[in-house]
Amino acid sequence: MPKLEAYDKSLPYSYALGMYPCQTLLDSRPGIASRLLLDETAARGEGIDGLRSRCAELGIRHEAAARVLRRESKKHNCYAALVFDKYVDTLCAEASHVVLHQLSDAGNMGTILRACLGFGVKDIAIIRPAADLFEPHLIRASMGAAFAMRVAMYDAFEEYRAAYPNHALYPFMLEGATPLSEAALSGVKPYALVFGNEGRGLPPDFARLGQAVVIPHSGAIDSLNVAVAVGIGVYVFTQGRSD
Amino acid sequence: MPKLEAYDKSLPYSYALGMYPCQTLLDSRPGIASRLLLDETAARGEGIDGLRSRCAELGIRHEAAARVLRRESKKHNCYAALVFDKYVDTLCAEASHVVLHQLSDAGNMGTILRACLGFGVKDIAIIRPAADLFEPHLIRASMGAAFAMRVAMYDAFEEYRAAYPNHALYPFMLEGATPLSEAALSGVKPYALVFGNEGRGLPPDFARLGQAVVIPHSGAIDSLNVAVAVGIGVYVFTQGRSD
Repeated sequence: MPKLEAYDKSLPYSYALGMYPCQTLLDSRPGIASRLLLDETAARGEGIDGLRSRCAELGIRHEAAARVLRRESKKHNCYAALVFDKYVDTLCAEASHVVLHQLSDAGNMGTILRACLGFGVKDIAIIRPAADLFEPHLIRASMGAAFAMRVAMYDAFEEYRAAYPNHALYPFMLEGATPLSEAALSGVKPYALVFGNEGRGLPPDFARLGQAVVIPHSGAIDSLNVAVAVGIGVYVFTQGRSD
Repeated sequence: MPKLEAYDKSLPYSYALGMYPCQTLLDSRPGIASRLLLDETAARGEGIDGLRSRCAELGIRHEAAARVLRRESKKHNCYAALVFDKYVDTLCAEASHVVLHQLSDAGNMGTILRACLGFGVKDIAIIRPAADLFEPHLIRASMGAAFAMRVAMYDAFEEYRAAYPNHALYPFMLEGATPLSEAALSGVKPYALVFGNEGRGLPPDFARLGQAVVIPHSGAIDSLNVAVAVGIGVYVFTQGRSD
Protein backbone atom coordinates (compact mmCIF):
# COMPACT_ATOMS: atom_id res chain seq x y z
CA MET A 1 0.00 0.00 0.00
CA PRO A 2 1.29 3.50 -0.74
CA LYS A 3 2.54 5.57 2.20
CA LEU A 4 -0.09 7.81 3.83
CA GLU A 5 0.98 11.43 3.71
CA ALA A 6 0.33 14.12 6.31
CA TYR A 7 -2.96 15.73 5.29
CA ASP A 8 -2.65 18.55 2.83
CA LYS A 9 -5.24 20.33 0.72
CA SER A 10 -3.53 19.16 -2.46
CA LEU A 11 -3.81 15.43 -1.67
CA PRO A 12 -6.50 13.44 -3.51
CA TYR A 13 -7.55 11.76 -0.26
CA SER A 14 -8.27 12.68 3.36
CA TYR A 15 -8.96 11.08 6.75
CA ALA A 16 -12.24 10.51 8.58
CA LEU A 17 -11.06 10.38 12.20
CA GLY A 18 -13.01 8.61 14.92
CA MET A 19 -15.86 6.12 15.11
CA TYR A 20 -18.81 8.37 14.39
CA PRO A 21 -17.37 9.98 11.24
CA CYS A 22 -16.28 6.54 10.00
CA GLN A 23 -19.75 5.12 10.47
CA THR A 24 -21.39 8.05 8.68
CA LEU A 25 -18.93 7.67 5.83
CA LEU A 26 -19.72 3.96 5.44
CA ASP A 27 -23.47 4.63 5.64
CA SER A 28 -23.42 7.49 3.15
CA ARG A 29 -20.58 6.95 0.70
CA PRO A 30 -19.09 3.48 1.16
CA GLY A 31 -17.53 3.61 -2.32
CA ILE A 32 -15.02 6.33 -1.44
CA ALA A 33 -13.50 4.61 1.62
CA SER A 34 -10.23 2.90 0.73
CA ARG A 35 -8.38 1.93 3.92
CA LEU A 36 -9.31 1.40 7.57
CA LEU A 37 -6.61 2.59 9.97
CA LEU A 38 -6.57 1.16 13.49
CA ASP A 39 -4.55 1.74 16.60
CA GLU A 40 -4.33 -1.94 17.45
CA THR A 41 -2.86 -1.41 20.89
CA ALA A 42 -5.91 0.60 21.93
CA ALA A 43 -8.56 -0.62 19.53
CA ARG A 44 -10.81 -2.94 21.50
CA GLY A 45 -14.54 -2.99 22.00
CA GLU A 46 -17.77 -3.34 20.06
CA GLY A 47 -17.48 -0.17 18.03
CA ILE A 48 -14.12 -1.04 16.54
CA ASP A 49 -15.10 -4.68 15.95
CA GLY A 50 -18.27 -3.58 14.15
CA LEU A 51 -16.33 -1.14 11.99
CA ARG A 52 -13.78 -3.78 11.12
CA SER A 53 -16.36 -6.37 10.07
CA ARG A 54 -18.32 -3.76 8.11
CA CYS A 55 -15.15 -2.84 6.23
CA ALA A 56 -14.36 -6.52 5.60
CA GLU A 57 -17.78 -6.92 3.94
CA LEU A 58 -17.13 -3.88 1.77
CA GLY A 59 -13.68 -5.13 0.79
CA ILE A 60 -11.87 -2.29 2.62
CA ARG A 61 -8.65 -3.60 4.12
CA HIS A 62 -7.61 -2.68 7.62
CA GLU A 63 -4.11 -1.97 8.82
CA ALA A 64 -2.30 -1.00 12.01
CA ALA A 65 -1.48 2.70 11.74
CA ALA A 66 -1.18 4.17 15.23
CA ARG A 67 1.42 6.67 14.10
CA VAL A 68 -0.76 8.06 11.28
CA LEU A 69 -3.73 8.30 13.66
CA ARG A 70 -1.71 10.26 16.20
CA ARG A 71 -0.30 12.55 13.52
CA GLU A 72 -3.63 13.37 11.90
CA SER A 73 -5.75 13.67 15.04
CA LYS A 74 -3.20 15.78 16.94
CA LYS A 75 -4.59 16.35 20.43
CA HIS A 76 -7.41 13.81 20.16
CA ASN A 77 -7.35 10.21 21.23
CA CYS A 78 -8.26 8.53 18.02
CA TYR A 79 -8.27 4.78 17.56
CA ALA A 80 -9.83 4.40 14.12
CA ALA A 81 -9.98 6.33 10.87
CA LEU A 82 -10.92 5.75 7.25
CA VAL A 83 -8.92 7.02 4.33
CA PHE A 84 -11.33 8.32 1.71
CA ASP A 85 -11.11 9.77 -1.79
CA LYS A 86 -12.18 13.37 -2.17
CA TYR A 87 -15.35 13.92 -4.20
CA VAL A 88 -17.37 16.66 -5.85
CA ASP A 89 -21.07 17.23 -5.17
CA THR A 90 -23.81 19.06 -7.02
CA LEU A 91 -26.57 20.69 -4.97
CA CYS A 92 -30.21 19.73 -5.29
CA ALA A 93 -31.95 22.59 -7.15
CA GLU A 94 -35.33 21.88 -5.54
CA ALA A 95 -34.08 21.90 -1.94
CA SER A 96 -33.33 24.89 0.28
CA HIS A 97 -29.66 25.76 0.75
CA VAL A 98 -27.29 27.28 3.25
CA VAL A 99 -24.57 29.42 1.66
CA LEU A 100 -21.35 30.04 3.64
CA HIS A 101 -19.47 33.05 2.29
CA GLN A 102 -15.72 32.90 2.92
CA LEU A 103 -15.80 31.14 6.29
CA SER A 104 -12.26 30.49 7.38
CA ASP A 105 -12.56 28.37 10.52
CA ALA A 106 -12.72 24.60 9.97
CA GLY A 107 -14.25 23.97 13.41
CA ASN A 108 -17.06 26.45 12.77
CA MET A 109 -17.71 24.94 9.36
CA GLY A 110 -17.92 21.39 10.72
CA THR A 111 -20.25 22.49 13.53
CA ILE A 112 -22.44 24.24 10.96
CA LEU A 113 -22.70 21.19 8.69
CA ARG A 114 -23.76 19.08 11.66
CA ALA A 115 -26.50 21.55 12.66
CA CYS A 116 -27.78 21.95 9.08
CA LEU A 117 -28.05 18.19 8.61
CA GLY A 118 -29.85 17.92 11.94
CA PHE A 119 -32.45 20.44 10.78
CA GLY A 120 -32.86 18.84 7.35
CA VAL A 121 -30.94 21.34 5.22
CA LYS A 122 -28.67 18.99 3.27
CA ASP A 123 -27.38 21.29 0.55
CA ILE A 124 -24.52 23.62 1.41
CA ALA A 125 -22.70 26.05 -0.89
CA ILE A 126 -19.25 27.19 0.17
CA ILE A 127 -17.92 30.38 -1.39
CA ARG A 128 -14.12 30.54 -1.51
CA PRO A 129 -11.70 31.55 -0.06
CA ALA A 130 -12.82 29.22 2.71
CA ALA A 131 -11.72 26.47 5.04
CA ASP A 132 -10.93 23.23 3.20
CA LEU A 133 -14.00 20.96 3.32
CA PHE A 134 -11.88 17.83 3.52
CA GLU A 135 -9.58 18.95 6.33
CA PRO A 136 -9.74 16.14 8.91
CA HIS A 137 -10.56 18.57 11.73
CA LEU A 138 -13.57 19.90 9.80
CA ILE A 139 -14.87 16.39 9.03
CA ARG A 140 -14.44 15.49 12.69
CA ALA A 141 -16.18 18.67 13.95
CA SER A 142 -19.07 17.78 11.60
CA MET A 143 -19.19 14.32 13.25
CA GLY A 144 -19.20 12.98 9.70
CA ALA A 145 -22.26 15.05 8.71
CA ALA A 146 -20.26 16.28 5.70
CA PHE A 147 -20.62 12.80 4.13
CA ALA A 148 -24.40 12.74 4.50
CA MET A 149 -24.97 16.07 2.72
CA ARG A 150 -24.26 17.69 -0.63
CA VAL A 151 -21.56 20.35 -0.31
CA ALA A 152 -20.45 22.32 -3.37
CA MET A 153 -17.65 24.88 -3.66
CA TYR A 154 -17.73 28.08 -5.73
CA ASP A 155 -15.10 30.71 -6.43
CA ALA A 156 -17.61 33.55 -6.13
CA PHE A 157 -21.15 34.09 -4.93
CA GLU A 158 -22.17 35.02 -8.50
CA GLU A 159 -21.13 31.56 -9.67
CA TYR A 160 -23.41 29.94 -7.09
CA ARG A 161 -26.24 32.31 -7.96
CA ALA A 162 -25.95 31.60 -11.68
CA ALA A 163 -26.36 27.90 -10.96
CA TYR A 164 -29.39 28.40 -8.66
CA PRO A 165 -31.07 31.66 -9.76
CA ASN A 166 -34.50 30.97 -8.29
CA HIS A 167 -33.83 30.49 -4.60
CA ALA A 168 -35.26 33.22 -2.36
CA LEU A 169 -32.13 34.74 -0.82
CA TYR A 170 -31.91 35.61 2.88
CA PRO A 171 -28.53 37.22 3.63
CA PHE A 172 -27.91 37.37 7.40
CA MET A 173 -26.56 40.84 8.21
CA LEU A 174 -25.88 42.84 11.36
CA GLU A 175 -27.78 45.96 10.33
CA GLY A 176 -30.84 47.35 8.62
CA ALA A 177 -32.62 44.08 8.18
CA THR A 178 -35.82 42.21 8.99
CA PRO A 179 -35.78 40.29 12.28
CA LEU A 180 -35.37 36.54 11.84
CA SER A 181 -38.76 35.64 13.33
CA GLU A 182 -40.54 37.82 10.74
CA ALA A 183 -38.40 36.78 7.80
CA ALA A 184 -39.01 33.10 8.51
CA LEU A 185 -42.77 33.59 8.23
CA SER A 186 -42.71 34.19 4.47
CA GLY A 187 -42.75 30.48 3.69
CA VAL A 188 -41.17 30.95 0.24
CA LYS A 189 -39.32 27.85 -0.96
CA PRO A 190 -36.76 26.91 -1.94
CA TYR A 191 -34.72 29.46 -0.03
CA ALA A 192 -31.02 30.06 0.54
CA LEU A 193 -29.81 31.36 3.90
CA VAL A 194 -26.53 33.21 3.37
CA PHE A 195 -23.94 33.74 6.15
CA GLY A 196 -20.67 35.69 6.07
CA ASN A 197 -17.12 35.37 7.33
CA GLU A 198 -16.34 35.13 11.08
CA GLY A 199 -14.74 38.56 11.34
CA ARG A 200 -16.24 40.58 8.53
CA GLY A 201 -19.76 39.18 8.08
CA LEU A 202 -21.25 39.64 4.59
CA PRO A 203 -20.26 42.56 2.38
CA PRO A 204 -22.93 45.32 2.65
CA ASP A 205 -24.09 44.88 -0.96
CA PHE A 206 -25.55 41.48 -0.08
CA ALA A 207 -28.45 43.38 1.53
CA ARG A 208 -29.72 44.19 -1.96
CA LEU A 209 -29.65 40.61 -3.21
CA GLY A 210 -32.63 39.43 -1.21
CA GLN A 211 -34.42 39.86 2.11
CA ALA A 212 -31.70 40.82 4.59
CA VAL A 213 -32.24 39.16 7.97
CA VAL A 214 -30.94 40.09 11.42
CA ILE A 215 -30.85 37.91 14.54
CA PRO A 216 -31.63 40.61 17.09
CA HIS A 217 -29.14 40.84 19.96
CA SER A 218 -28.08 43.49 22.43
CA GLY A 219 -25.28 45.95 21.84
CA ALA A 220 -23.30 44.26 24.62
CA ILE A 221 -21.77 41.96 22.00
CA ASP A 222 -20.31 42.75 18.62
CA SER A 223 -21.83 39.73 16.89
CA LEU A 224 -22.76 36.11 17.47
CA ASN A 225 -20.34 33.29 16.66
CA VAL A 226 -21.19 32.28 13.08
CA ALA A 227 -21.95 28.66 13.95
CA VAL A 228 -24.41 29.82 16.59
CA ALA A 229 -25.97 32.26 14.09
CA VAL A 230 -26.38 29.54 11.44
CA GLY A 231 -27.83 27.16 14.04
CA ILE A 232 -30.43 29.72 15.10
CA GLY A 233 -31.22 30.79 11.52
CA VAL A 234 -31.71 27.26 10.24
CA TYR A 235 -33.66 26.21 13.34
CA VAL A 236 -36.11 29.09 12.97
CA PHE A 237 -36.54 28.60 9.20
CA THR A 238 -37.11 24.85 9.44
CA GLN A 239 -38.95 24.13 12.67
CA GLY A 240 -42.41 22.79 12.16
CA ARG A 241 -41.97 22.59 8.40
CA SER A 242 -41.14 19.58 6.26
CA ASP A 243 -38.32 20.74 4.04
CA MET B 1 7.05 44.27 38.25
CA PRO B 2 6.83 40.56 39.02
CA LYS B 3 7.48 38.14 36.16
CA LEU B 4 4.34 37.07 34.25
CA GLU B 5 3.92 33.32 34.39
CA ALA B 6 2.54 31.04 31.70
CA TYR B 7 -1.19 30.83 32.38
CA ASP B 8 -2.21 28.13 34.80
CA LYS B 9 -5.44 27.51 36.65
CA SER B 10 -3.69 27.99 40.00
CA LEU B 11 -2.46 31.53 39.24
CA PRO B 12 -4.36 34.41 40.89
CA TYR B 13 -4.38 36.33 37.59
CA SER B 14 -5.09 35.69 33.89
CA TYR B 15 -4.79 37.39 30.50
CA ALA B 16 -7.46 39.14 28.39
CA LEU B 17 -5.99 38.75 24.90
CA GLY B 18 -6.88 41.09 22.05
CA MET B 19 -8.53 44.47 21.65
CA TYR B 20 -12.18 43.54 22.09
CA PRO B 21 -11.73 41.54 25.32
CA CYS B 22 -9.52 44.33 26.70
CA GLN B 23 -12.15 46.96 25.97
CA THR B 24 -14.93 44.90 27.55
CA LEU B 25 -12.77 44.35 30.62
CA LEU B 26 -12.12 48.09 31.01
CA ASP B 27 -15.81 48.89 30.47
CA SER B 28 -17.07 46.26 32.89
CA ARG B 29 -14.47 45.72 35.59
CA PRO B 30 -11.72 48.36 35.33
CA GLY B 31 -10.65 47.71 38.94
CA ILE B 32 -9.30 44.21 38.24
CA ALA B 33 -6.97 45.17 35.35
CA SER B 34 -3.39 45.51 36.54
CA ARG B 35 -1.03 45.65 33.55
CA LEU B 36 -1.37 46.43 29.83
CA LEU B 37 0.87 44.28 27.65
CA LEU B 38 1.76 45.52 24.18
CA ASP B 39 3.69 44.19 21.24
CA GLU B 40 5.36 47.50 20.50
CA THR B 41 6.80 46.40 17.18
CA ALA B 42 3.31 45.71 15.84
CA ALA B 43 1.14 47.90 18.02
CA ARG B 44 0.11 50.87 15.93
CA GLY B 45 -3.26 52.32 15.13
CA GLU B 46 -6.27 53.90 16.77
CA GLY B 47 -7.39 50.90 18.75
CA ILE B 48 -4.09 50.42 20.52
CA ASP B 49 -3.65 54.16 21.12
CA GLY B 50 -7.15 54.39 22.63
CA LEU B 51 -6.48 51.41 24.86
CA ARG B 52 -3.20 52.90 26.02
CA SER B 53 -4.66 56.30 26.92
CA ARG B 54 -7.64 54.67 28.64
CA CYS B 55 -5.25 52.62 30.75
CA ALA B 56 -3.18 55.72 31.53
CA GLU B 57 -6.33 57.44 32.89
CA LEU B 58 -7.07 54.39 35.04
CA GLY B 59 -3.50 54.23 36.34
CA ILE B 60 -2.77 50.91 34.62
CA ARG B 61 0.83 50.89 33.44
CA HIS B 62 1.74 49.56 30.02
CA GLU B 63 4.80 47.56 29.12
CA ALA B 64 6.38 45.93 26.08
CA ALA B 65 5.71 42.19 26.36
CA ALA B 66 5.72 40.68 22.87
CA ARG B 67 7.07 37.38 24.16
CA VAL B 68 4.30 36.97 26.75
CA LEU B 69 1.66 37.85 24.12
CA ARG B 70 3.01 35.23 21.74
CA ARG B 71 3.21 32.62 24.48
CA GLU B 72 -0.32 33.13 25.78
CA SER B 73 -2.11 33.63 22.45
CA LYS B 74 -0.42 30.67 20.73
CA LYS B 75 -1.59 30.63 17.13
CA HIS B 76 -3.22 34.08 17.20
CA ASN B 77 -1.70 37.37 16.22
CA CYS B 78 -2.20 39.31 19.38
CA TYR B 79 -0.80 42.80 19.91
CA ALA B 80 -2.42 43.79 23.20
CA ALA B 81 -3.56 42.11 26.40
CA LEU B 82 -4.53 43.05 29.93
CA VAL B 83 -3.43 41.16 32.99
CA PHE B 84 -6.38 40.91 35.36
CA ASP B 85 -7.05 39.55 38.84
CA LYS B 86 -9.44 36.63 39.06
CA TYR B 87 -12.73 37.34 40.79
CA VAL B 88 -15.79 35.62 42.21
CA ASP B 89 -19.36 36.51 41.20
CA THR B 90 -22.74 35.89 42.76
CA LEU B 91 -25.72 35.41 40.44
CA CYS B 92 -28.74 37.69 40.45
CA ALA B 93 -31.60 35.76 42.09
CA GLU B 94 -34.30 37.68 40.20
CA ALA B 95 -32.82 37.13 36.73
CA SER B 96 -33.08 34.05 34.53
CA HIS B 97 -29.99 31.82 34.37
CA VAL B 98 -28.18 29.46 32.05
CA VAL B 99 -26.63 26.47 33.84
CA LEU B 100 -23.76 24.64 32.15
CA HIS B 101 -23.29 21.16 33.60
CA GLN B 102 -19.72 19.85 33.31
CA LEU B 103 -18.82 21.45 29.97
CA SER B 104 -15.21 20.68 29.21
CA ASP B 105 -14.40 22.70 26.10
CA ALA B 106 -13.16 26.26 26.70
CA GLY B 107 -14.02 27.37 23.15
CA ASN B 108 -17.61 26.15 23.50
CA MET B 109 -17.93 27.86 26.86
CA GLY B 110 -16.64 31.20 25.55
CA THR B 111 -18.96 31.02 22.53
CA ILE B 112 -21.87 30.28 24.87
CA LEU B 113 -21.15 33.24 27.16
CA ARG B 114 -21.05 35.55 24.14
CA ALA B 115 -24.42 34.30 22.86
CA CYS B 116 -26.07 34.48 26.31
CA LEU B 117 -24.92 38.06 26.82
CA GLY B 118 -26.18 38.95 23.34
CA PHE B 119 -29.64 37.64 24.23
CA GLY B 120 -29.70 39.33 27.63
CA VAL B 121 -29.09 36.32 29.89
CA LYS B 122 -26.28 37.66 32.07
CA ASP B 123 -26.20 35.07 34.86
CA ILE B 124 -24.39 31.81 34.21
CA ALA B 125 -23.86 28.92 36.61
CA ILE B 126 -21.03 26.53 35.84
CA ILE B 127 -21.17 23.09 37.45
CA ARG B 128 -17.73 21.49 37.90
CA PRO B 129 -15.77 19.63 36.65
CA ALA B 130 -15.66 22.15 33.84
CA ALA B 131 -13.38 24.24 31.67
CA ASP B 132 -11.58 26.96 33.63
CA LEU B 133 -13.53 30.22 33.27
CA PHE B 134 -10.36 32.30 33.33
CA GLU B 135 -8.42 30.35 30.70
CA PRO B 136 -7.26 32.98 28.17
CA HIS B 137 -8.70 30.99 25.25
CA LEU B 138 -12.15 30.94 26.88
CA ILE B 139 -12.07 34.68 27.60
CA ARG B 140 -11.02 35.29 24.02
CA ALA B 141 -13.71 33.00 22.56
CA SER B 142 -16.24 34.95 24.62
CA MET B 143 -14.90 38.18 23.06
CA GLY B 144 -14.70 39.47 26.62
CA ALA B 145 -18.39 38.76 27.29
CA ALA B 146 -17.29 36.91 30.44
CA PHE B 147 -16.43 40.28 32.04
CA ALA B 148 -19.85 41.78 31.34
CA MET B 149 -21.80 38.94 33.01
CA ARG B 150 -22.04 37.23 36.37
CA VAL B 151 -20.56 33.74 36.24
CA ALA B 152 -20.56 31.54 39.34
CA MET B 153 -19.01 28.11 39.85
CA TYR B 154 -20.49 25.22 41.83
CA ASP B 155 -19.14 21.80 42.74
CA ALA B 156 -22.52 20.12 42.15
CA PHE B 157 -25.88 20.98 40.63
CA GLU B 158 -27.49 20.55 44.07
CA GLU B 159 -25.31 23.38 45.40
CA TYR B 160 -26.55 25.72 42.64
CA ARG B 161 -30.13 24.61 43.23
CA ALA B 162 -29.92 25.21 46.96
CA ALA B 163 -28.82 28.80 46.27
CA TYR B 164 -31.59 29.44 43.72
CA PRO B 165 -34.48 27.10 44.61
CA ASN B 166 -37.23 29.03 42.85
CA HIS B 167 -36.10 29.16 39.24
CA ALA B 168 -38.27 27.15 36.84
CA LEU B 169 -35.84 24.51 35.55
CA TYR B 170 -35.64 23.56 31.89
CA PRO B 171 -33.09 20.76 31.40
CA PHE B 172 -32.24 20.33 27.71
CA MET B 173 -32.26 16.59 26.94
CA LEU B 174 -32.10 14.42 23.84
CA GLU B 175 -35.15 12.27 24.63
CA GLY B 176 -38.65 12.20 26.03
CA ALA B 177 -39.06 15.91 26.38
CA THR B 178 -41.23 18.85 25.32
CA PRO B 179 -40.17 20.57 22.08
CA LEU B 180 -38.39 23.87 22.64
CA SER B 181 -41.02 25.98 20.87
CA GLU B 182 -43.72 24.69 23.25
CA ALA B 183 -41.62 24.89 26.39
CA ALA B 184 -40.71 28.51 25.70
CA LEU B 185 -44.39 29.50 25.64
CA SER B 186 -44.89 28.99 29.36
CA GLY B 187 -43.59 32.45 30.21
CA VAL B 188 -42.62 31.44 33.78
CA LYS B 189 -39.82 33.63 35.20
CA PRO B 190 -37.20 33.53 36.41
CA TYR B 191 -36.12 30.35 34.64
CA ALA B 192 -32.89 28.38 34.38
CA LEU B 193 -31.99 26.65 31.12
CA VAL B 194 -29.73 23.69 31.90
CA PHE B 195 -27.32 22.16 29.35
CA GLY B 196 -25.07 19.12 29.69
CA ASN B 197 -21.56 18.04 28.77
CA GLU B 198 -20.42 17.90 25.11
CA GLY B 199 -20.23 14.12 24.92
CA ARG B 200 -22.63 12.86 27.56
CA GLY B 201 -25.37 15.50 27.71
CA LEU B 202 -27.23 15.73 31.03
CA PRO B 203 -27.65 12.68 33.30
CA PRO B 204 -31.13 11.16 32.75
CA ASP B 205 -32.36 12.08 36.24
CA PHE B 206 -32.32 15.76 35.30
CA ALA B 207 -35.56 15.08 33.39
CA ARG B 208 -37.35 14.87 36.75
CA LEU B 209 -36.03 18.17 38.06
CA GLY B 210 -38.11 20.37 35.80
CA GLN B 211 -39.65 20.60 32.34
CA ALA B 212 -37.29 18.63 30.12
CA VAL B 213 -36.86 20.31 26.71
CA VAL B 214 -35.72 18.90 23.37
CA ILE B 215 -34.53 20.82 20.33
CA PRO B 216 -36.05 18.58 17.66
CA HIS B 217 -33.59 17.37 15.03
CA SER B 218 -33.41 14.47 12.62
CA GLY B 219 -31.82 11.14 13.43
CA ALA B 220 -29.11 11.88 10.85
CA ILE B 221 -27.06 13.48 13.63
CA ASP B 222 -26.32 12.24 17.11
CA SER B 223 -26.70 15.65 18.76
CA LEU B 224 -26.13 19.35 18.14
CA ASN B 225 -22.91 21.03 19.22
CA VAL B 226 -23.61 22.34 22.72
CA ALA B 227 -22.83 25.98 21.86
CA VAL B 228 -25.33 25.79 18.97
CA ALA B 229 -27.90 24.18 21.28
CA VAL B 230 -27.48 26.89 23.95
CA GLY B 231 -27.67 29.60 21.28
CA ILE B 232 -30.95 28.22 19.94
CA GLY B 233 -32.41 27.60 23.40
CA VAL B 234 -31.62 31.07 24.71
CA TYR B 235 -32.74 32.74 21.46
CA VAL B 236 -36.13 31.02 21.57
CA PHE B 237 -36.65 31.69 25.29
CA THR B 238 -35.72 35.38 25.06
CA GLN B 239 -36.83 36.70 21.68
CA GLY B 240 -39.62 39.20 21.88
CA ARG B 241 -39.44 39.34 25.67
CA SER B 242 -37.74 41.87 27.89
CA ASP B 243 -35.75 39.79 30.37
